[in-house]
Amino acid sequence: MILFGEHAVVSGAAALGAAVDLRVGARIEDLPGRLEISAPDLRMDLKGIALDPLTGEVLTKAGEEAAHAARYITAVLKEFGARDLRVTVESEIPPASGLGSSASVVVATLGALSRHLALDMSTEEIAMEAFRIERTVQEGLGSPTDTALAAFGGYRLVEGSARAVDLPEMKLVVGFTGLPHDTRAEVSKVQSFRARRPEIVDPIFRAIGEISRLAPELIREGRLEELGELMNTNHGLLEAVGVGTRELSELVYASRGGGQAFGAKLTGAGGGGCMIALPRPGPGGVLRAMTAIDQARGEPFSVVTGCQGLRIEDPGEVR
Amino acid sequence: MILFGEHAVVSGAAALGAAVDLRVGARIEDLPGRLEISAPDLRMDLKGIALDPLTGEVLTKAGEEAAHAARYITAVLKEFGARDLRVTVESEIPPASGLGSSASVVVATLGALSRHLALDMSTEEIAMEAFRIERTVQEGLGSPTDTALAAFGGYRLVEGSARAVDLPEMKLVVGFTGLPHDTRAEVSKVQSFRARRPEIVDPIFRAIGEISRLAPELIREGRLEELGELMNTNHGLLEAVGVGTRELSELVYASRGGGQAFGAKLTGAGGGGCMIALPRPGPGGVLRAMTAIDQARGEPFSVVTGCQGLRIEDPGEVR
Repeated sequence: MILFGEHAVVSGAAALGAAVDLRVGARIEDLPGRLEISAPDLRMDLKGIALDPLTGEVLTKAGEEAAHAARYITAVLKEFGARDLRVTVESEIPPASGLGSSASVVVATLGALSRHLALDMSTEEIAMEAFRIERTVQEGLGSPTDTALAAFGGYRLVEGSARAVDLPEMKLVVGFTGLPHDTRAEVSKVQSFRARRPEIVDPIFRAIGEISRLAPELIREGRLEELGELMNTNHGLLEAVGVGTRELSELVYASRGGGQAFGAKLTGAGGGGCMIALPRPGPGGVLRAMTAIDQARGEPFSVVTGCQGLRIEDPGEVR
Repeated sequence: MILFGEHAVVSGAAALGAAVDLRVGARIEDLPGRLEISAPDLRMDLKGIALDPLTGEVLTKAGEEAAHAARYITAVLKEFGARDLRVTVESEIPPASGLGSSASVVVATLGALSRHLALDMSTEEIAMEAFRIERTVQEGLGSPTDTALAAFGGYRLVEGSARAVDLPEMKLVVGFTGLPHDTRAEVSKVQSFRARRPEIVDPIFRAIGEISRLAPELIREGRLEELGELMNTNHGLLEAVGVGTRELSELVYASRGGGQAFGAKLTGAGGGGCMIALPRPGPGGVLRAMTAIDQARGEPFSVVTGCQGLRIEDPGEVR
């Protein structure tokens, strides 16, 4: 997830991303003469899927969402000419929620394929290849941060290039509005606003970049109240560039209200998707924030930031 | 009301204010041997009020709100050593809503007193004197813009000093949260945030100032859709500095929703008080925005901006 800096990072400002403990698992088994892709959590189950042998396009589609996830998985398979396989992808990440599920799916599938085909790719190679594949599927849109976080885990500060930053884990509460969002549309809306009103949007992006640069120190030193304040400020700045929604705002205020959380903001492209809240430490903090989000008709789940990225597990232990 | 630039103006950024057609009327009559102040709309009715002859303080108080309004009225009377009067103040402005009711009360009372005592003060003199009195009552806090708008009407662009700008009238819808706010507390909160995080707050104020400078051209040319977009951006920036509330946000989103309004923002110090929405032109635009605010549990009223300021009417016609 993006903790700070979404949208501004597109124009060169700093952003801070974190891997979270919502995991995507990919398992690959031999299946001579056939290709099966199954991703039940992504509402997708394509048995005997047919790929166009020239373009690699999925010829059998099972609805928009399935096709969406299938595009990423088949793009990975196509890259390595992989056939005669059963690919099973399990995901704890709500699709189209802005939590980088596509990057995680690509990294997991690549990791499993590398192992299955004994390609022995390094995590660096997997991260780079995953970014390339994701950007191809998304026709030029894509962030190397999403795929790097899925591959390496931890935290990454993006400022021009991305670098890992060593920070302690944090408990956050995510609230999903249940509304999908369209990253491409939101990014293009904000960038077009910036083109029309650079004198307004550039200072906003500057303020966002400053927040991203300040945040690592606050996380390192456990200054969570100040971190929450910056989340609130970053949320307002995202509303200012037009990617807030009524539903996101309701979850943000619900989670802040009554002192449940130090701060809250939307995460990702906005226009739908998820918000995150930083609950007060101590017993009940996470539960109070989750309850507030639930009562505001959001779907709450708790996550830990800064977790492990790609790991290879023995068959049967995929998760 | 402040259209754009609240809080940022405290640190020198531009702001745009407008007089609205919510009027305060003050009537002054001789009442030998007594002093009566009556302001029923401000929930105040002090018959036979006693003033401390040395300090001019109100010795008879009738609750917090009455005392609040009484402080302004008695400050004007004290300034001119006025006694033996009945002062009647009628107000259409919700008190403590951030719509400058205190400035209007002071200007109206001064205007009536100037006429009653044949002081023949000019509007300029009344505006300056009103500012001085308001700032004294508020112990140093006060904006010359509020009193100038109440005295002169129209629009004023504040940038260092304030100047009148000649712009057409506009229909706006105001939504009152019903929650009073504390201008001093909100201003001090924002200024202390700025002192702690100038690298974040200064660019935010710069963006707000740019909005205030752009707005007059859009109002002049009737580019209301673009004006609404800037209202939305300014609202986000006010949320970013911490003066948004859940109730304000609900009214803002309600009025924007379903295309009722081109844009909406909180107005004034925030932390309660009012928001304003710019309805689409044409039949039903104002009603739709008002209905949306009403359904979100706000108190809606429609206003016209850029109206007349102080005017002297014949006795019996006070309004």
